[in-house]
Amino acid sequence: MLLGRVVGTLVATHKEPSLDGLKFLALKQLDIDGNETGGYRIAADAVGAGIGELVLYATGSAARQTEMTDGRPCDAVIMAIVDTLEVDGELKYDKARDG
Amino acid sequence: MLLGRVVGTLVATHKEPSLDGLKFLALKQLDIDGNETGGYRIAADAVGAGIGELVLYATGSAARQTEMTDGRPCDAVIMAIVDTLEVDGELKYDKARDG
Amino acid sequence: MLLGRVVGTLVATHKEPSLDGLKFLALKQLDIDGNETGGYRIAADAVGAGIGELVLYATGSAARQTEMTDGRPCDAVIMAIVDTLEVDGELKYDKARDG
Amino acid sequence: MLLGRVVGTLVATHKEPSLDGLKFLALKQLDIDGNETGGYRIAADAVGAGIGELVLYATGSAARQTEMTDGRPCDAVIMAIVDTLEVDGELKYDKARDG
Amino acid sequence: MLLGRVVGTLVATHKEPSLDGLKFLALKQLDIDGNETGGYRIAADAVGAGIGELVLYATGSAARQTEMTDGRPCDAVIMAIVDTLEVDGELKYDKARDG
Repeated sequence: MLLGRVVGTLVATHKEPSLDGLKFLALKQLDIDGNETGGYRIAADAVGAGIGELVLYATGSAARQTEMTDGRPCDAVIMAIVDTLEVDGELKYDKARDG
Repeated sequence: MLLGRVVGTLVATHKEPSLDGLKFLALKQLDIDGNETGGYRIAADAVGAGIGELVLYATGSAARQTEMTDGRPCDAVIMAIVDTLEVDGELKYDKARDG
Repeated sequence: MLLGRVVGTLVATHKEPSLDGLKFLALKQLDIDGNETGGYRIAADAVGAGIGELVLYATGSAARQTEMTDGRPCDAVIMAIVDTLEVDGELKYDKARDG
Repeated sequence: MLLGRVVGTLVATHKEPSLDGLKFLALKQLDIDGNETGGYRIAADAVGAGIGELVLYATGSAARQTEMTDGRPCDAVIMAIVDTLEVDGELKYDKARDG
Repeated sequence: MLLGRVVGTLVATHKEPSLDGLKFLALKQLDIDGNETGGYRIAADAVGAGIGELVLYATGSAARQTEMTDGRPCDAVIMAIVDTLEVDGELKYDKARDG
């Protein structure tokens, strides 16, 4: 999984029928220090993430292992909202402090 | 998923038989601001996208989760036509305005 | 899918038994304008492609969705020979003209 | 598989329900000489790896081939703790010596 | 598939139980001319490859399509030892000559 920050929403009314009801969020990819890498992903939201939140997303077939995305043409899913990330003994992110 | 703009078509009469009837479109990959990245993809079209449209495409096994692509050797599918994309509070794309 | 040009052949007599009878071709990866990217792929040939031909290849699990590759340890397959590729209103490739 | 060093932990209480009980570790990706590449991965831990250990991780659908991750939206798993890595006749890493 | 040269071995006693008996080899990734790219992969060996040999390896779910790797958390497998590779009419590699 990789880290992302939710930065926006995508609306598409004309789509593969099985995608009805899925919410698509725009994520900026983050490195392990929480800095933007320049990459992004449009991901289905399986956890009710909000704009600005730091999230964990999975890509590939893993993105279909949720009730919302099972059997749908979806290759990226937000599957967790990050509370804390500690790297090299340092608290890089704390939702209570930084969220 | 990633954003792409439909820029062309590919015709192949000599192909794996199961691909008969699939339409292949050429996509230029876009970044989250709608700029071209230099990358591209030839994708099956599951939604009737037209030249110039901003679309969402899925890659990998997700590309086979449509009735058109199920069980076929296809690793990229256009699964939605974008109406609006809002990033960092800014409307980056609006089909009604920019389409 | 991505575009490739068939540039050679690979022979391997010592291999996973299920691969017997598969033909492996060397592909140079092409960008959307038909220029070489520096990348390559060794792919199974599902369509009888010849040296010099412009082809479409699929990677990942899609590469096993042909009768020849089903259930085999193969992650890239040539699934179509390109007749024409039109991009931005320009005929980038025409097998009858350039092939 | 690729090599990584366990550098931290990620806690997420709000997540896809099937992920309950999975431990997420932060990995810095290493090259074949054991140097950091700048890349990282947040991976599920299937082997009880500890901070500082050199591990092997698998990505994609392989990451769900453990009892802990089966059927869960998880695309990276630590599946082995490295004892020794020998490259070009040189012992690049020896857990007993360097661990 | 991509080309690699077997350059070493990895030993891991503490690992996902289903991996018992699999042999892990270190591969340096090669480009189509047989030069090292700087990339590498730790792959399961399904063909009894030896140090120094030029091999073909598959990644992703393809890596589990061998008897040795089926159902195991393994995302890269050596599935063939290369005898010859001919590119642009030139014999880039010949095991009898260069092996």
